Amino acid sequence: METFEVLRIKDKERERIKDRVAREVPLTIELNGKELVTLLCTPADLEDLIRGFLYTSGFIKQNKEIKKILIDEERGTARVKTSNKSLDKGLIFKRLYTSGCGQGTIFYRDIDLIHRRKLNSRFRISSHSLTKLMRQFREKSAQFIKTGGVHSAALTSGERILVFREDIGRHNACDKVIGRALATDLDLGNTALLTSGRISSEILLKTRKGKIPLVASRSAPTDQAVKLARAMQITLVGFARGKRMNIYSSEGRIS
Amino acid sequence: METFEVLRIKDKERERIKDRVAREVPLTIELNGKELVTLLCTPADLEDLIRGFLYTSGFIKQNKEIKKILIDEERGTARVKTSNKSLDKGLIFKRLYTSGCGQGTIFYRDIDLIHRRKLNSRFRISSHSLTKLMRQFREKSAQFIKTGGVHSAALTSGERILVFREDIGRHNACDKVIGRALATDLDLGNTALLTSGRISSEILLKTRKGKIPLVASRSAPTDQAVKLARAMQITLVGFARGKRMNIYSSEGRIS
Repeated sequence: METFEVLRIKDKERERIKDRVAREVPLTIELNGKELVTLLCTPADLEDLIRGFLYTSGFIKQNKEIKKILIDEERGTARVKTSNKSLDKGLIFKRLYTSGCGQGTIFYRDIDLIHRRKLNSRFRISSHSLTKLMRQFREKSAQFIKTGGVHSAALTSGERILVFREDIGRHNACDKVIGRALATDLDLGNTALLTSGRISSEILLKTRKGKIPLVASRSAPTDQAVKLARAMQITLVGFARGKRMNIYSSEGRIS
Repeated sequence: METFEVLRIKDKERERIKDRVAREVPLTIELNGKELVTLLCTPADLEDLIRGFLYTSGFIKQNKEIKKILIDEERGTARVKTSNKSLDKGLIFKRLYTSGCGQGTIFYRDIDLIHRRKLNSRFRISSHSLTKLMRQFREKSAQFIKTGGVHSAALTSGERILVFREDIGRHNACDKVIGRALATDLDLGNTALLTSGRISSEILLKTRKGKIPLVASRSAPTDQAVKLARAMQITLVGFARGKRMNIYSSEGRIS
């Protein structure tokens, strides 16, 4: 975090205070010698972010395909070498035709295929446990409380929080926990993803790519996320606040 | 909005309710016959979104360069014709090397140039007026209240709200109000931008591209946004809630 001197106005009072603000840096990922993407992110756990991003975006199918990650924080670049250099060039090319607060084209061209792949998982959790975990998750989001500008994500076994990461971007926070899970050989199929942000179709597709059977948030989902969750049989929980929650799909996993 | 039947759990009670969820659709913009970008957005005011996006991303310098916008909502595509077909191809190419919840590369390569262009504007507003406008802005955000999943943005003259738009994406909501202003020949240099979301460097750069002298949010800024605002002499107001606000830069515009 970075501290700035700012002017605080409170009704008619004016005072100079020190305010702590979340950091944001550009990180350009170069994959096998070709510039791939620039992410705007929080400068922490960058290796997790890269691993997770490459995985949930379909550039690697397994963690072991990553041979080397060289991060230069000063310059904001990361050079990644993977074993699958023959990666379909069409895929990369289409991937680049996306931007904004979205990762559209490839995923959208992918949807029909993904639709047919329903997620099988025996993962179960009680609503009581999920409520408890969401409370722990919220308590852990210390940086959000301090700066008001950071999202968080976590993976839970159903009993406790296994991985927790923060980032200024919703997507990045999810990629970071998934990247961490890959690096430590965690079985994602037996976890649930907790996120502080809204559940859009992109978060749902990341959940699916990670083969994670349940995603929960205290925020709202979008209609696309609900439709995808139903088609892919992923349990989608929204508005998980206090002892309440809305279950939008595959409710059988919540007892 | 779309309505889904969902299971609501509240402590030990379970009931089936109808829940209204914000819509999310992909919109692929084709610029002069070439696919440019796919945005995930709320399917409303798409023409404003396209106009604003092309402007704040640097693909047009003036509204009148847009000769035609043909939107096919069914297919999620928009074909745009502009008069500046000789647009620097390097620019487009770099623009495509971005993704995620970020619009990195071009902007980041642009920053040095933008840095030198400080924004001159005689726009002034009292903290009292800004407080009042932020309250009105919040009251207008009806969809957010209903579905919890939508961001909003507005342009104000300092006296009243001139344009108001909503979108599932923070960036899109800002592009929509800027696009609307362009279409109606509003003088952006005499307005302030209000946003419901976090102020990241991208929002700041959109503000700068629109030549808007003040941006305010009830959320937090990032450090990059504060640095850019200071360098470009844009007034950045964060945490504008109730009668409080933090002013991070160019406080002289707020009396």
